[in-house]
Amino acid sequence: MKVTAIREISVPIGSSLRNSAFDFSEMTTSVVAVVTDVIRDGRPVVGYAFNSTGRYACGAQMRDRLVPRIMKAAPESLLDASGSNFAPEKFLACMMQREKPGGHTERSVAVGTIEVAVWDAVAKIEDQPLHAVLSERFNHGALARQVSCYVGGGWYAPGKGIAQLQDEIRARLAEGYTTMKIKVGGASLAEDLERVEAALHLVDGGAHLAVDANATFDRQRAHTYADALAPYALRWLEEPTDPLDFSLLAELTQRYAPPLATGENLFSTQDIANLVRFGRLRPDRDLLQMDVAQSYGIVQFSRTLEMLKAQGWQPSAVYPHGGNLMTLAVVAGFGLGGCEAYPGVFGPFAGFHDDARIENGMITLSERPGIGFEGQNELYALMRSLSS
Amino acid sequence: MKVTAIREISVPIGSSLRNSAFDFSEMTTSVVAVVTDVIRDGRPVVGYAFNSTGRYACGAQMRDRLVPRIMKAAPESLLDASGSNFAPEKFLACMMQREKPGGHTERSVAVGTIEVAVWDAVAKIEDQPLHAVLSERFNHGALARQVSCYVGGGWYAPGKGIAQLQDEIRARLAEGYTTMKIKVGGASLAEDLERVEAALHLVDGGAHLAVDANATFDRQRAHTYADALAPYALRWLEEPTDPLDFSLLAELTQRYAPPLATGENLFSTQDIANLVRFGRLRPDRDLLQMDVAQSYGIVQFSRTLEMLKAQGWQPSAVYPHGGNLMTLAVVAGFGLGGCEAYPGVFGPFAGFHDDARIENGMITLSERPGIGFEGQNELYALMRSLSS
Repeated sequence: MKVTAIREISVPIGSSLRNSAFDFSEMTTSVVAVVTDVIRDGRPVVGYAFNSTGRYACGAQMRDRLVPRIMKAAPESLLDASGSNFAPEKFLACMMQREKPGGHTERSVAVGTIEVAVWDAVAKIEDQPLHAVLSERFNHGALARQVSCYVGGGWYAPGKGIAQLQDEIRARLAEGYTTMKIKVGGASLAEDLERVEAALHLVDGGAHLAVDANATFDRQRAHTYADALAPYALRWLEEPTDPLDFSLLAELTQRYAPPLATGENLFSTQDIANLVRFGRLRPDRDLLQMDVAQSYGIVQFSRTLEMLKAQGWQPSAVYPHGGNLMTLAVVAGFGLGGCEAYPGVFGPFAGFHDDARIENGMITLSERPGIGFEGQNELYALMRSLSS
Repeated sequence: MKVTAIREISVPIGSSLRNSAFDFSEMTTSVVAVVTDVIRDGRPVVGYAFNSTGRYACGAQMRDRLVPRIMKAAPESLLDASGSNFAPEKFLACMMQREKPGGHTERSVAVGTIEVAVWDAVAKIEDQPLHAVLSERFNHGALARQVSCYVGGGWYAPGKGIAQLQDEIRARLAEGYTTMKIKVGGASLAEDLERVEAALHLVDGGAHLAVDANATFDRQRAHTYADALAPYALRWLEEPTDPLDFSLLAELTQRYAPPLATGENLFSTQDIANLVRFGRLRPDRDLLQMDVAQSYGIVQFSRTLEMLKAQGWQPSAVYPHGGNLMTLAVVAGFGLGGCEAYPGVFGPFAGFHDDARIENGMITLSERPGIGFEGQNELYALMRSLSS
């Protein structure tokens, strides 16, 4: 029982989106296929993943180091104790050979993407949806059928004014979503407050509206926005500081009473430990938003969650970055707070199974084996081309 | 006046070295040539650099994003105010377009390597050694002729015992070095203390011996080693913790009175700000060891130094990682504490100008224009192949 090939391609995301920090016009992602010699339904089981959105493709790291390490390993050294399935934690350790401590992001995205693809294969071999496999291993088998899901939207775009923002929000509410996140920081404060108020006219109060500053504020502007936004009691204020500016974040936790959210631009367990400790985040209200595929994958995420629990954090405080089926499986499997969705953006690299239903802000899980990319046709067509 | 091409190759370092954390058997580096249309001595000026040691080659990031951004920029947008030379800070800003905040290492190595190569070209166009150019811009023109230089050595190797370690140290002292750094943490504490004592027999007291744990200790072992090493009053104890474990580092600053050193595995100004603040490092004794080429280059290093000065740190506390000519120029130009040297290891990717003299622990600077790779024959042969 072994991995027979690991293939990857870099695909442009082809998005014209812009937030307050940068645009996505050059953005790419790596799509990965882990091909095995295990036969199910007459065909080899193949695990798939992609490196989420916002970090560029990482195929070179895979080709130059990670895939050769896996392919050189003795096949039995990558199996679980029973010998009947792959052991993702052993793939992680194998890929991390000869990697210098620290400097995480150069490899964490590539390692995590391959690791998540291995989990897709593991769940397919068990003939279970990945969320069920994760729940059994990490969450006492608690089985979710639905997951809370909010819209990451409200991007800036040329010619997009208040009316177009409201059209976007109305469309999302009509689709069944109830909670909306919109960008701030890419316009003047006055303009952003107008956008917030326009959004509040449509959603069911501040608890259903979040805002995302995408890490662009300096100290002065962070304070100004925090003070101006506090009265709206929004669901959360996301990335009001540089991702690593824990001192400024700690100031804001003293100044801004409603929830803060951050973490999508930190990629290691130790960075998250520093974030909650030195950023003085509040376990009773703040949110953590790591991107699992970009941060060494699911095994390392389980270790981060253990570290967080020891610091007084509940899994319900975690809302992982990335509106895709990988995140959905992790949210359901670990019993996290909720999942992000990007309806209509990032092409095939956003969204869930094509037959997904959203009702009252909840998305119904697919029961397809694995992550379930086979139910997301446009993306699966790309993935399948890697293994045929 | 413009850059006409930027070329890179990935080269295996081909080293059998091992420290307590990992071995270098797969290690590679990217060698870069920034070719310009400026003519000096009848030939186009070419700036060279490589991505130091310990982080893998990063050519994909250069080819896919950084080089195209530079080549697409209007040539005049990359020049200084006089229009007669290139402006490295504009290359940095150009390369950072459409890069998401945080997640530094994925690009900081590639960005920094290209930026250092631009500086090599800038100094060649000024017909000055890079250290003189840097000194004029960043250090009030203070001109060094010599720089303090210590040996980063004492690696673990199969069959290498106390006698071989002492042979190594004797050879270095014979070459003119006076301060030696040896590895710890890759053996038992008893064995490592035996190595430390064997080294102390040869050098001129604890002030001339440093030890490097390469970030492998857990909390218990960090405490144990700190307590055992403190009585030797060594020059410094390097990387006794995970590079990002600022809490444990803060504990050690309370427990271990002699100097601590770290920073080579942090790659952004914000990470270094967090290190000195939350790690509670002591400006009166501790050392900071960023790798300039791996951390966005020289302009960003100057910003890190400004941040550090505002926190009470002197340039003399900085001993940058990387025993090579790039580091030497930066140490001399900014008036830093000292430079690392790796005699006999890392092949052409260590060492200085072939005619370098070491006397009483000081290395005499070359007066070749630029970084001076032209005086390091084996490395320059590699570099020249990129521009011919």
